[in-house]
Amino acid sequence: MEFTISQIAAMLGGEVKGDGQGKINMLAKIQDAKPGQIAFLSNPKYENYIYTTQASAVIVSKDFTPRKEIKATLILVADPYNSFTQLLEEYHKMMSFQKTGIEEPSFMGNKSVAGKNIYRGAFSYIGHNVKIGDNVKIYPHVFVGDNVVIGNNVILHPNVKLYADTKIGNNCVLHAGTVVGSDGFGFAPQSDGTYKSIPQMGNVIIEDDVVIGANTVIDCATMYGDSTVIRQGVKLDNLIQIAHNVEVGKNTVIAAQTGISGSTKLGEHCVIAGQVGIAGHLFIANNTSIGAQGGISKSIKEEGQKLIGYPVFDVKDYFRSYAVFKKLPDLNDRLRQLEKMIQGSGQDTPVNQDSLSQ
Amino acid sequence: MEFTISQIAAMLGGEVKGDGQGKINMLAKIQDAKPGQIAFLSNPKYENYIYTTQASAVIVSKDFTPRKEIKATLILVADPYNSFTQLLEEYHKMMSFQKTGIEEPSFMGNKSVAGKNIYRGAFSYIGHNVKIGDNVKIYPHVFVGDNVVIGNNVILHPNVKLYADTKIGNNCVLHAGTVVGSDGFGFAPQSDGTYKSIPQMGNVIIEDDVVIGANTVIDCATMYGDSTVIRQGVKLDNLIQIAHNVEVGKNTVIAAQTGISGSTKLGEHCVIAGQVGIAGHLFIANNTSIGAQGGISKSIKEEGQKLIGYPVFDVKDYFRSYAVFKKLPDLNDRLRQLEKMIQGSGQDTPVNQDSLSQ
Amino acid sequence: MEFTISQIAAMLGGEVKGDGQGKINMLAKIQDAKPGQIAFLSNPKYENYIYTTQASAVIVSKDFTPRKEIKATLILVADPYNSFTQLLEEYHKMMSFQKTGIEEPSFMGNKSVAGKNIYRGAFSYIGHNVKIGDNVKIYPHVFVGDNVVIGNNVILHPNVKLYADTKIGNNCVLHAGTVVGSDGFGFAPQSDGTYKSIPQMGNVIIEDDVVIGANTVIDCATMYGDSTVIRQGVKLDNLIQIAHNVEVGKNTVIAAQTGISGSTKLGEHCVIAGQVGIAGHLFIANNTSIGAQGGISKSIKEEGQKLIGYPVFDVKDYFRSYAVFKKLPDLNDRLRQLEKMIQGSGQDTPVNQDSLSQ
Repeated sequence: MEFTISQIAAMLGGEVKGDGQGKINMLAKIQDAKPGQIAFLSNPKYENYIYTTQASAVIVSKDFTPRKEIKATLILVADPYNSFTQLLEEYHKMMSFQKTGIEEPSFMGNKSVAGKNIYRGAFSYIGHNVKIGDNVKIYPHVFVGDNVVIGNNVILHPNVKLYADTKIGNNCVLHAGTVVGSDGFGFAPQSDGTYKSIPQMGNVIIEDDVVIGANTVIDCATMYGDSTVIRQGVKLDNLIQIAHNVEVGKNTVIAAQTGISGSTKLGEHCVIAGQVGIAGHLFIANNTSIGAQGGISKSIKEEGQKLIGYPVFDVKDYFRSYAVFKKLPDLNDRLRQLEKMIQGSGQDTPVNQDSLSQ
Repeated sequence: MEFTISQIAAMLGGEVKGDGQGKINMLAKIQDAKPGQIAFLSNPKYENYIYTTQASAVIVSKDFTPRKEIKATLILVADPYNSFTQLLEEYHKMMSFQKTGIEEPSFMGNKSVAGKNIYRGAFSYIGHNVKIGDNVKIYPHVFVGDNVVIGNNVILHPNVKLYADTKIGNNCVLHAGTVVGSDGFGFAPQSDGTYKSIPQMGNVIIEDDVVIGANTVIDCATMYGDSTVIRQGVKLDNLIQIAHNVEVGKNTVIAAQTGISGSTKLGEHCVIAGQVGIAGHLFIANNTSIGAQGGISKSIKEEGQKLIGYPVFDVKDYFRSYAVFKKLPDLNDRLRQLEKMIQGSGQDTPVNQDSLSQ
Repeated sequence: MEFTISQIAAMLGGEVKGDGQGKINMLAKIQDAKPGQIAFLSNPKYENYIYTTQASAVIVSKDFTPRKEIKATLILVADPYNSFTQLLEEYHKMMSFQKTGIEEPSFMGNKSVAGKNIYRGAFSYIGHNVKIGDNVKIYPHVFVGDNVVIGNNVILHPNVKLYADTKIGNNCVLHAGTVVGSDGFGFAPQSDGTYKSIPQMGNVIIEDDVVIGANTVIDCATMYGDSTVIRQGVKLDNLIQIAHNVEVGKNTVIAAQTGISGSTKLGEHCVIAGQVGIAGHLFIANNTSIGAQGGISKSIKEEGQKLIGYPVFDVKDYFRSYAVFKKLPDLNDRLRQLEKMIQGSGQDTPVNQDSLSQ
């Protein structure tokens, strides 16, 4: 994982000023950088560091005019911050997909096939009839059940568990401990007060470009042939619960510890904050935004709303109501005072005073 | 996993009409079924499919009179839907208990014993002095601590973790990533502001017919000889927290992401929705129903209540109060208006006007 | 794990009365104790048991005067309850650190080193360049990523997952299924409605004396060189979410299922109850106490407050407001009644009656 400064400049479409043959193996902040590392200067506030940095290279604006001598090689670009971010992404991607080969012992069942550039960590388990694409990284303690299909460029972090028949698209990342395809929570009440398990025979489909955090759970659909579906581009945080037959629409983002009950369909481009609860069999319109800890008990048909509360309503209205809620004892006192005044005023009114008492 | 149509008919107590020797290896919907599969016809709406289906067999009512020729063999029963459901359950059960044998490498400690028809997946770990019944399925990456006792017909999905001394009854299913027997959260505050861990030396007992979802956690009891207890027939969903010394009563059902604090005793036949929080050292009466995200801070002594809110009270009253909550700014305005009117009416009243100001 | 009664007496600074050579291998309650076990008598209510107990030894107050003959050897101490607790802690500590040696198969990468008295369970995985101190217990299915550093006296329960570059201090306990160092939830919205992953390149630092429950998740910091930090003495319960760049201050205690969003700094000695949600980029003052299910959306600058609600405010005020909330329909009726009275009183007031209608 080492590049020359010239190679990096070429990647960024930048111009080298100084020795382009220096080797770079890491990115760093300009104030912390050491030899062999590359930094960037964007905010003029940090300019002083460029004269003292030990970085081997610094990415700077092509309009930058040094006030003193600079030891580091410079790479001149249009927007140093963007270039550095681009570099960071490339570096991170390379690091993420760096591991290859098969560590032993690992397990692979009959009739299972995998593409090129695979990493299969020690103690990973791949069942029977599994199909795995190219450039897939399967960390230690991952479990891949029978008949699972996995696309290209997928990372399964340590201990991801994919139940049988799960389907995963391309470019997905699943973090440690996440479970995909466990039984939906379906039980039929019996006349003797017990519950009988309803067989859960469907599967889970995760489309392309999905990222799922750690220790999240996605249940399979109930009926054979049905699927719980996570659409393209969805991002799920840690410790989320997705129940059976749920569908999460394209590019929807859900923060940690949120739970979605069975058979609910979430629209596209929704933003669901943390610890939200959504009841079952609902429809949530596209572009819905739900504030943290919100509870949703009815379908949301109008697109683009921002909602909060339990149950949710408009976020601004919620905070207006909540402001009065905080003063409710005072409000109650004021009301009592008025009641006393009216009673005490000796007016001849048709009021039944009992009806005023709390 | 293949039966003749006659064998299936016998299992259902039905009558075969056509060739009973055809082989069946899968269940399917009548509109999707392929050769080798069995479907059912219950709703007359779907009758047309029976004349075109590729299913090898269809379960129909004994009162069904075809309007055209049918290629599939028929199985005549009293209630096709019930029979199909029964078949589905049998099939699912067989599939669930299908795996047998020992995949290597797997680990089994000293003096541990297991019954008949065991499956022990690769990388499963069984400690010392463990007793396992018949027909137990232990998937890859399962951890069974020392001295654990497991009954018959138990399925431990991948990566279930049973700490030492856990006891599990018959016919239980634990889903992937669930942890049983971790330390209770007990710390004694010290005078220097630190906390000292209180040794957690009890265990967890899970009785018969319990189902537990994925990534749920059940802590052990604090004292040696005490147990956290999950009674017979309890169903727990995913990502639930059961603290030390809790007891969950028979046939109680708890939805995902709910948390129950230490030493609380839940009654029988309770229905606890998702994301509910129950404080410690409480008693919850039988047949209590708690709505999603409810918070319980006091014991519930009267049976059969339906509660919600934080803290919970009667669910209908909650929604009545919440309806007014949503109009609180308006209510506040109305009150202010009345106050102005009274002040502005020039009446000779004994009111201290300061007391009316907010 | 066997001591003579005299050895135990010496450990407790107590005096033996009877045969000090008896062997003790377990602690028990006085009413349950069997030969080979040690019990204590503190509460006079239990005195009768001491004359019938089968315990080989009983810890009693040096002021205790038996009324009858006692078979068990006595250990006389100043405070029997404290002595027993001390013994319990020693016993538990010994049991916890009892396992040593390496079970096979287990995996250890290149250039990784470990100290003395290590336990490495079967199927545990230790990456490359890992540094592990003395007396560290690594249970089966634990994953330790590359470059991780672990101090002395650390217990990693089954299936703990430490991503690369994590640092763990001394005397820490991490329970089963906990994930440390997974990616923070950071995505940059793109003009086409998709989200691009922001590389998460920092790490997690866990200082000394930290205890973490089961299936909890702690995300790494975003920038290379930055850390999510859990300070000395922190205790985290099960199923907690700690987002990227969070800092949890010294000796802060957090109960189960609480979530803390990115970049928030919690003070020292805070007590956060279960299912609390804290938004991102906040500062929470020392000694803050948050009630269960509370939601925090603003920084808390004043130390020592007890808060609850969504968003949180003073806990006593919350319950006062909530008491009125439960009677809101009644309050609304009372207000309506007053409005009718004023309208019906025939006074000549400047009120626009429309403004009174709801």
